[in-house]
Amino acid sequence: MNKVEPKTLPGFMELFPSEQLEFNRIKNIITDTYQKYGFYPLDTPVIEYSEVLLAKAGGETEKQIYRFNKGDTDLSLRFDLTVPLAKYVSRRYNELVFPFKRYQIGKVFRGERNQKGRYREFYQCDIDVIGDEELSIRYDAEMPSIIYDILKSLNIGDFVIRINNRKVLSGFFESLGLSDKITDILRTIDKIDKIGVKEVEKELKDLGIKDTKSIIDFISTKDIDSLSKMCDNDVFNTGIEELKFVLEDLSQRGIPNTNYELDVTIARGLDYYTGTVYETILKDHPDIGSVCSGGRYDNLAEYYTDKKLPGVGISIGLTRLFYQLMEAGIIKCDSVSSSDIILLPMCEDFSYVYKVSNELRDMGYSINICYLNKGFKQMIRYAERLNNKYAIIIGDDEVNNNELTIKNLSEYSQEKISLKDLKKYKFML
Amino acid sequence: MNKVEPKTLPGFMELFPSEQLEFNRIKNIITDTYQKYGFYPLDTPVIEYSEVLLAKAGGETEKQIYRFNKGDTDLSLRFDLTVPLAKYVSRRYNELVFPFKRYQIGKVFRGERNQKGRYREFYQCDIDVIGDEELSIRYDAEMPSIIYDILKSLNIGDFVIRINNRKVLSGFFESLGLSDKITDILRTIDKIDKIGVKEVEKELKDLGIKDTKSIIDFISTKDIDSLSKMCDNDVFNTGIEELKFVLEDLSQRGIPNTNYELDVTIARGLDYYTGTVYETILKDHPDIGSVCSGGRYDNLAEYYTDKKLPGVGISIGLTRLFYQLMEAGIIKCDSVSSSDIILLPMCEDFSYVYKVSNELRDMGYSINICYLNKGFKQMIRYAERLNNKYAIIIGDDEVNNNELTIKNLSEYSQEKISLKDLKKYKFML
Repeated sequence: MNKVEPKTLPGFMELFPSEQLEFNRIKNIITDTYQKYGFYPLDTPVIEYSEVLLAKAGGETEKQIYRFNKGDTDLSLRFDLTVPLAKYVSRRYNELVFPFKRYQIGKVFRGERNQKGRYREFYQCDIDVIGDEELSIRYDAEMPSIIYDILKSLNIGDFVIRINNRKVLSGFFESLGLSDKITDILRTIDKIDKIGVKEVEKELKDLGIKDTKSIIDFISTKDIDSLSKMCDNDVFNTGIEELKFVLEDLSQRGIPNTNYELDVTIARGLDYYTGTVYETILKDHPDIGSVCSGGRYDNLAEYYTDKKLPGVGISIGLTRLFYQLMEAGIIKCDSVSSSDIILLPMCEDFSYVYKVSNELRDMGYSINICYLNKGFKQMIRYAERLNNKYAIIIGDDEVNNNELTIKNLSEYSQEKISLKDLKKYKFML
Repeated sequence: MNKVEPKTLPGFMELFPSEQLEFNRIKNIITDTYQKYGFYPLDTPVIEYSEVLLAKAGGETEKQIYRFNKGDTDLSLRFDLTVPLAKYVSRRYNELVFPFKRYQIGKVFRGERNQKGRYREFYQCDIDVIGDEELSIRYDAEMPSIIYDILKSLNIGDFVIRINNRKVLSGFFESLGLSDKITDILRTIDKIDKIGVKEVEKELKDLGIKDTKSIIDFISTKDIDSLSKMCDNDVFNTGIEELKFVLEDLSQRGIPNTNYELDVTIARGLDYYTGTVYETILKDHPDIGSVCSGGRYDNLAEYYTDKKLPGVGISIGLTRLFYQLMEAGIIKCDSVSSSDIILLPMCEDFSYVYKVSNELRDMGYSINICYLNKGFKQMIRYAERLNNKYAIIIGDDEVNNNELTIKNLSEYSQEKISLKDLKKYKFML
């Protein structure tokens, strides 16, 4: 028979089993934390009407989208989880309870140019709160506090959540008469970590800006009190007030002040965010860029409804993050196992084996049973290749005496215990 | 601004938040049970090369598939999780440890004709074990024992797993000289639950079969000993031996004999399965059809590799099952909540509120905080609409005295406790 080469598309992550275990462990920590804050899960379709999905889109998004016809219907694969949320909330507006807190963890699709660390199919882990007409600013502080919990649990090193407010930026540049140049200015400022202050100043001059010193002073300011004195107009003052509130609320929540900071260089997507904005940096790996970003917006769903639906949200790009954590050696997958304990039966009667496995599963352990029916060496080899820390050997002797031989495969030690002592046995996993 | 109607495609499930909570609870039970048996998770791409995905397909599958071009590449959305598994195992053959145990829970896509209870995007929950050249028959018994655990945990009523062996069918019809008619015969037999014995006999006659009595006797046989005497050739005898082994092994595992039975009318997909086959019926809702099916196959990946890769697997069609369980009233979603407890702060200082929420989350509870900043009645209304069973009210009095007012919203009772007693408080969730 002619064989087809079993290949996977470039830009599509397909992990090795032990990597997938580690990926899922991280995904579960994110899910569990979102749930611990009382967010509803949401699971919208992968495929939507193109007219619905592209109501707002344009430019790059349109080019990247996977779009096709099935019969007469113009379909597209979702390219983010925000547009489906906007659709969902508009569609279900009359049934939902506001503020509506939801998380969604799922794959999104973008046919980007293929390059290392860029994926065309990737997981986003989104969390948003949507208000009806209004939404308390305390949610702006709840978002980073959730991210703090997640990153603490992930234990991937020290991190800082950088916080800014778009009104502070708009107000400040308005006062300098630079409102028309704000897009270019913010794009330049955004590069400060990469190219340094001098180069930023040079680029600002290239934009025709004379008073670059005010801007450099502004973006170098790290405390809210100094910042509040740098300008005085309504937009700016509202921004400062909101920023102050968020920073203070984070402190009340008990988040250590080393894990969050004011950073006026954070701007995020220009058209979308209107208030608080966030980025998150791993201190030992700033090169990875922001691992988690988001912010406050005034109007989630204006393309679908006249209702004013303000919201605040944050998102983790899990597929890219996982790739980067592996590349940087921050996570390692080579010793994880799909089961806590493996049973190696070398006996005739399996009733006893099943009695033991049922008991262990009832105790909460994940149990694999080896049915290889081969020699002892090959079965131990199987257990080792699966990274099992514990193997329980059950031969005819064990069956006849109601015993078990527990082998610690990482310490090369073993001991025989009585079945009735199994419940008390301490497996060090 | 012109508004786009926020609609969802027909045949695509998009649940209400409380329904999604219930859906996820079921999905988590399935996931946890698969993991408890030491299976690796797998997560293959939604999009694959059409040539890879369609290596084997034909007929109906080709018509239903979502297939399109992106640039010059011919792409398709996966229509099941078996073909991606075959691709994965062939591609990773040299790195995998066999027997390779994997589960995959994910969406698949089929552009079927739209009808009630049929979905175009739906979850499959697959579990398979793949051997290299050979695979112990004990896995044929492990599959239904896993399904038994899942259905017991789901608590959706009494059920029976029906088990057969394809070799028993092939051997028997071969002995009657009906090998060439086996497809039609099995299709007829498959209808026995719907149309009854008499109608089946009539249809068999229509197929030109004279000795319909042998067939009716055969398919009415419910015990393995009587069955084993009904024919005598190599294929049949091997089938009987395998079937006997599986049934006996299930009994050794402690599965009650009311939850599984021999049923020679079970045939499943004709080209694919070669040994043990399963279907699962909810006893009070036989009309739902099989909620979980699968079987043994000789060769997983012959379209990709010369390696002989036998396997056995079983699958739950979760989206359809969930729809049917809701329709039949077996599951109800109207009282589930996204959080165990909701805090209703009516105080000035939120530090105390956050202290309480942090402590409760550390205790393992999911905690929502209401930031509505409205009157007491509106906040209680919010808690009730979210189906919260417990609300904790924190006013200035509570803050000043280090107390909490715990309100049981389903019993309309409340009590005031001291913060230091919170850890001991028994929330009845």
